Amino acid sequence: MFAVEVQDHIMIAHSFPSEVFGPAQGLHGATFTVNLAFFASDIDKHGMVVDIGLATKVLSEVLEPLRYKNLDELEQFKGKFTTTEFLCRYIFDQVLIELKQGKLADDSRVEKLTGQLAGELHGQGMV
Amino acid sequence: MFAVEVQDHIMIAHSFPSEVFGPAQGLHGATFTVNLAFFASDIDKHGMVVDIGLATKVLSEVLEPLRYKNLDELEQFKGKFTTTEFLCRYIFDQVLIELKQGKLADDSRVEKLTGQLAGELHGQGMV
Amino acid sequence: MFAVEVQDHIMIAHSFPSEVFGPAQGLHGATFTVNLAFFASDIDKHGMVVDIGLATKVLSEVLEPLRYKNLDELEQFKGKFTTTEFLCRYIFDQVLIELKQGKLADDSRVEKLTGQLAGELHGQGMV
Amino acid sequence: MFAVEVQDHIMIAHSFPSEVFGPAQGLHGATFTVNLAFFASDIDKHGMVVDIGLATKVLSEVLEPLRYKNLDELEQFKGKFTTTEFLCRYIFDQVLIELKQGKLADDSRVEKLTGQLAGELHGQGMV
Amino acid sequence: MFAVEVQDHIMIAHSFPSEVFGPAQGLHGATFTVNLAFFASDIDKHGMVVDIGLATKVLSEVLEPLRYKNLDELEQFKGKFTTTEFLCRYIFDQVLIELKQGKLADDSRVEKLTGQLAGELHGQGMV
Amino acid sequence: MFAVEVQDHIMIAHSFPSEVFGPAQGLHGATFTVNLAFFASDIDKHGMVVDIGLATKVLSEVLEPLRYKNLDELEQFKGKFTTTEFLCRYIFDQVLIELKQGKLADDSRVEKLTGQLAGELHGQGMV
Repeated sequence: MFAVEVQDHIMIAHSFPSEVFGPAQGLHGATFTVNLAFFASDIDKHGMVVDIGLATKVLSEVLEPLRYKNLDELEQFKGKFTTTEFLCRYIFDQVLIELKQGKLADDSRVEKLTGQLAGELHGQGMV
Repeated sequence: MFAVEVQDHIMIAHSFPSEVFGPAQGLHGATFTVNLAFFASDIDKHGMVVDIGLATKVLSEVLEPLRYKNLDELEQFKGKFTTTEFLCRYIFDQVLIELKQGKLADDSRVEKLTGQLAGELHGQGMV
Repeated sequence: MFAVEVQDHIMIAHSFPSEVFGPAQGLHGATFTVNLAFFASDIDKHGMVVDIGLATKVLSEVLEPLRYKNLDELEQFKGKFTTTEFLCRYIFDQVLIELKQGKLADDSRVEKLTGQLAGELHGQGMV
Repeated sequence: MFAVEVQDHIMIAHSFPSEVFGPAQGLHGATFTVNLAFFASDIDKHGMVVDIGLATKVLSEVLEPLRYKNLDELEQFKGKFTTTEFLCRYIFDQVLIELKQGKLADDSRVEKLTGQLAGELHGQGMV
Repeated sequence: MFAVEVQDHIMIAHSFPSEVFGPAQGLHGATFTVNLAFFASDIDKHGMVVDIGLATKVLSEVLEPLRYKNLDELEQFKGKFTTTEFLCRYIFDQVLIELKQGKLADDSRVEKLTGQLAGELHGQGMV
Repeated sequence: MFAVEVQDHIMIAHSFPSEVFGPAQGLHGATFTVNLAFFASDIDKHGMVVDIGLATKVLSEVLEPLRYKNLDELEQFKGKFTTTEFLCRYIFDQVLIELKQGKLADDSRVEKLTGQLAGELHGQGMV
């Protein structure tokens, strides 16, 4: 199995309006690093799993609506706790939508995809 | 599958009394970084896999008896080679005991657990 | 010259209300890593520049009012652009006030102090 | 499952003679970090998965013919695109050959092996 | 004193035709990370040392002629050993030329500049 | 000013027999990363500050007597607290002795030298 990984990051504000989140309930912010890995069981004739330029572009476009934003004000997150886990799945799902539209070109060999959103030790979610 | 990871570290002394270990046979020491990852197939209503505060506390409590210690003098390691691999399993097993006692609260969604003990290139075990 | 460094971090929200800041004008957030270094020309009889426990506590207390906060709402930052550079100086000045109050104990050998606030590549300030 | 990982690196020159590679078509170079992980379901009587000294030696010997080389001039890569993905598999296969020759000693418990070649964000392959 | 740092990288091929360089004499390659720090004794009315967007652009433009290149074939390096130290000074001097042309805008407060080129442990120069 | 840096590490045991050190009083251990930087105002005709192979060897030889050792049992540390600060100066002084003996070859351009010993956040000394 081969894997190719791209990375980007976002700087967002959000709040967690529930006692469960203790000191992180109020409006604060975070820098999140986003890793996206593409898997294939073989490489193509150019020795590649995926065109890394296109892969980087797909991730960047998916993150564009979140960059420098207050997530509490975005329509798609109304009534949600935008924890690291939640955002990881949201971004992952958005990437899948892009891929289904053929954004990685017709001959992509990608068979599996994993995402990782790295935040902070005392934040919620994956470090 | 979702994963949430916490990290801590310990600074211990130990020896490896066997020729197999070459220059590392005598009493020396190491700083070990410990990573613990909790997996769940879904997040709960607060968008979490696990309460990261409780997860951090469980790991810290398990490491407490090892902090700043000479492992050669601890009863539980008598006659054992406390290699990185061995310690990794030991810490992992201790965490499991804590989890079975409900230390992550009743509604934990944790289904799988992995541990990693990161030492040094020329030590024994996972780097 | 000897140096001892401690580290902490904060997760804050803020905005930069000026066209100068381009896409970062609106309310967004950041995770900032704070490094604080203490310098002395010699070490004391215990082989130390400073009690690292006290040094860590001083930094933590100075950061406490900023943790998980929206800086736009804090009185001390009214009318200010809380850039990485600005915050670096603010935190540094607060630490100096603590030190003048003897928080590092009477026999501290600290002669010089430097601070660093590490944000993000596309944010404003020191990376 | 236990894992022990070793690391080494190479500094090579190569070209990618196809329009597919855009600005990376001509002769350029890269520093690649190579990670090799050995897996076993249990540790041996010395608390080890593998003798890390032997594991490090195997990886070093496999990389020796590539160190400080222009890959375009090596016989084994004629007509190949030496992308990160391709090199990852090549190095991995060479390690397997060494292992089958018993280079990790007779009592090795290694059951699985994974390799990783870490290059650069804008290069081809795994970051 | 305030400092703002930007970072970029290049992937180049080069040779060191002298016995002094041992195994690195022949044509090989390297990934170099380039750090550039701008210093000022005070921040401006927007709380900035320098417009980090412009600073990033200056560094990127200076590196453009070196990206994905075989340095042995570039006119400006004929008869030179393009060691890490040499390249560090070359890039630094090119940045200075750009700055003197006002590329950081008229109101720049930059008073001092430092550069760092980070290569590899076994390469020549700064790690 | 040019700088070339080399790195090595040691894994040692030691104790701090004084109440001042709290939980770190007893016999424990640490992995220390050692950085050594050589400065020169110009590079030589080969584009180098120092032969990095020789520099690496000097550092390695100085660390040899400390590797995998219990510092409490070494003659040179009797009655001393081997804190990170203390060890940093000790290693630095040993390197200076080597340099005065011409271990970097006759034409070395080194004018200044700095050392750094990186331990752990909760240990004593430079992080």
